[in-house]
Order: sequence, then C-alpha cells, then structure tokens
Amino acid sequence: MKVTIGVSNRHVHLKEEDMITLFGENFQLEELRPIHQPGQFASTSTVTLKGEKRQLDNVRILGPTRSYTQVEISKTDAYYLGINPPVRMSGDLKGSSPITIIGPKGELHLKEGCIIADRHIHILPKQRKLYDLEGIDKVSVRLFGEKGGVVDDVYIRESETSYYEMHIDTDDANAHLVTNGDMAEILKGEDYDKNR
Amino acid sequence: MKVTIGVSNRHVHLKEEDMITLFGENFQLEELRPIHQPGQFASTSTVTLKGEKRQLDNVRILGPTRSYTQVEISKTDAYYLGINPPVRMSGDLKGSSPITIIGPKGELHLKEGCIIADRHIHILPKQRKLYDLEGIDKVSVRLFGEKGGVVDDVYIRESETSYYEMHIDTDDANAHLVTNGDMAEILKGEDYDKNR
Repeated sequence: MKVTIGVSNRHVHLKEEDMITLFGENFQLEELRPIHQPGQFASTSTVTLKGEKRQLDNVRILGPTRSYTQVEISKTDAYYLGINPPVRMSGDLKGSSPITIIGPKGELHLKEGCIIADRHIHILPKQRKLYDLEGIDKVSVRLFGEKGGVVDDVYIRESETSYYEMHIDTDDANAHLVTNGDMAEILKGEDYDKNR
Repeated sequence: MKVTIGVSNRHVHLKEEDMITLFGENFQLEELRPIHQPGQFASTSTVTLKGEKRQLDNVRILGPTRSYTQVEISKTDAYYLGINPPVRMSGDLKGSSPITIIGPKGELHLKEGCIIADRHIHILPKQRKLYDLEGIDKVSVRLFGEKGGVVDDVYIRESETSYYEMHIDTDDANAHLVTNGDMAEILKGEDYDKNR
C-alpha cells in the first residue's frame, strides 16, 4: 500500500487574536500557494521564532487561522533554538514548549504551543476502509531514499476533508533522503511488527 | 545484537598542507576531547564552511591529520549551505561536492571533498566473527527513539583499531530522537530483508 510523502518544514498556525498581535488590526492572511489538505494554504506572511539560545527567521504562517496557536518545528530546529518540545499531535498543546513569536507589529511570548509534530497519514474514511486500516491507529512506513529505512508510529488521521498523504518533518525527510511527492509504503502489522 | 550509537555532527578532517593553509605554518591540532575511535580526537580548532547560499560557523576539526581533506555534513546542513553532496564512505571523495573552508589564516576552495557520510558500524575482526557478521557488508538497525524506526544500509567497517559503535549523522539521530550512547539493535537479514 503506497502513500505520497509530504514534508512539513517548520511552520506556525495562528488563532485570530494572536495574528492581530503579530500583524496588526484588520490583517488578513494571503495565500502564497495552496497545500494539499483542502482549504489550507501557505501564506505570504512569515515570523521569527525565538528560543532560549537562538532565533529562526522567515518561518511561514499556514492559513487559515485556527482555534489555537501552534508552532511546529523539527528536533534539529529545537536544538538550534535551545528548546525541548514534545512529540505531539496537532492541537495537543498542554505542557508543550514555551516559545516567542516575533511579527512585524508585535511579539507573542507563549507559555506553551511549540511541538514536534508526530508522523501521520491524512486519510478519508472511505479510503481507510478500502485500505484495510480501520481499527488501526498507527502504522510503520518504509521510505525508499538513498538512506532508506522504516519510520514507526505513523498515526492514521481520518477526516472527511483529508487529502491522502503522509506528513513527516524535515528531519525524517533529510535522514532518509526523501522529498515531497516521493512514494512510501505502508507496512502491514503482520509483516512487520513480529520482528520488533 | 546491540550496538551503541555515536552521533556525528558536521566536522572536517584535514590533510597537513590544508591545515597549514587554514591555520598557518607550524600549527598543530590540540585535543579538546578524545572520540571513541582509538587515536582520534575532537580538536580545539574550528572553521567556517561556505556553500553556494550560506555559511556555517564553528565547525570542528577532528584530528589527527589524514592523507585527505574531507568535510562531513548532514542533508539539513547541505540544504542550508546550498550544496548537494553525495552519500559516501569516508575517503571516497571522487566527484563529491565542492566547498569552501575558511580558517583564521586562509581559505581553501575545494573542487571536491564534501560528503554526507554513510551510516556505518565500526567493528573489530574478532567481534565481526563473534557476532556472525562475516561476509555481510551492510545491515539494517532498529533505533528506539520516541520517533523510532529502522535505518537501512548501515555498512560494516572492520579494522584492527575499531571501537564497536554505530555512526549516524544528526539527521538520522534527530529524525528518530536518539542521541549519543543510546543502544540500537542490529537486524539480521533473515528476520528483516524478506519484508522489503
């Protein structure tokens, strides 16, 4: 069973009031380019992330706004910034890392909100059924890069508006030398887990 | 079969004449701390690496000098610098990436010499025999980080002066959330390769 890889670079989701703090009253995110998940887009706006040790500039805001503000970075970014975010599902922010976000009109000093996103596959309910993944919460996936391998704990994320795609971060992609649009293979438990 | 992980951050090996170009006549590398492979050490000296797009400062020189100059970086570093080095075994530099090395006394503009090091395991001949790895050139290895998985194409590198250890780069380590000194598990071909 194949799945296309989408590589998530560091990015930020904003709630409305935080967007106003960073970019000012009456600001609207503009679409730079769509991303595969329906309705979502990379915006023309970027911010600076600041950790305990260093900062990262030009970090893109994804739109539209959400009900929570969330910063997603890689472990490599985390070492660079000097912070230690947990591996989390999007939206699960309790106890996640503090981080500062700097925009053109203001700064946000978040007590929590920075995570390393878990590996996951977006899927429609009908695809999940078709691919025999009902009742399966996570799978392992083989990546076919020149430094290939298998990534474990790839969570199945079902919704009625999904575009079927596996999301991994830049560390996963760069470790295995895979990139956006490459194909990966979902390993069925019976073929793989017995060797663990 | 277990093996300890050693994570290789970006670093540089220098031949004698290149060391003199960068650091001046009569310069000697000083040991900052030993590394596990016998006789080798992290030196007190660092250089700047410069690629097509950006530069990386404070990149450590490993000692002692070698018969060739070699820069080892991760794919993440390569994107940052704006270069495209191949995955290679140490010393296999023909056709590898051009890179500029900047030292306190001079610069080197190398036509080749920058690689992404292959994953490998250092092993003594007697250990290779004991662990039933004779005649096996490469293995897959399971990493047990919170974002765990299996890395393929880990080359067996036998020598009489090896310290038994698996070397992976920072991308591999950060993708799987493992670090120096963590234990990994060598997967025997008969248990693993049939699933590929």
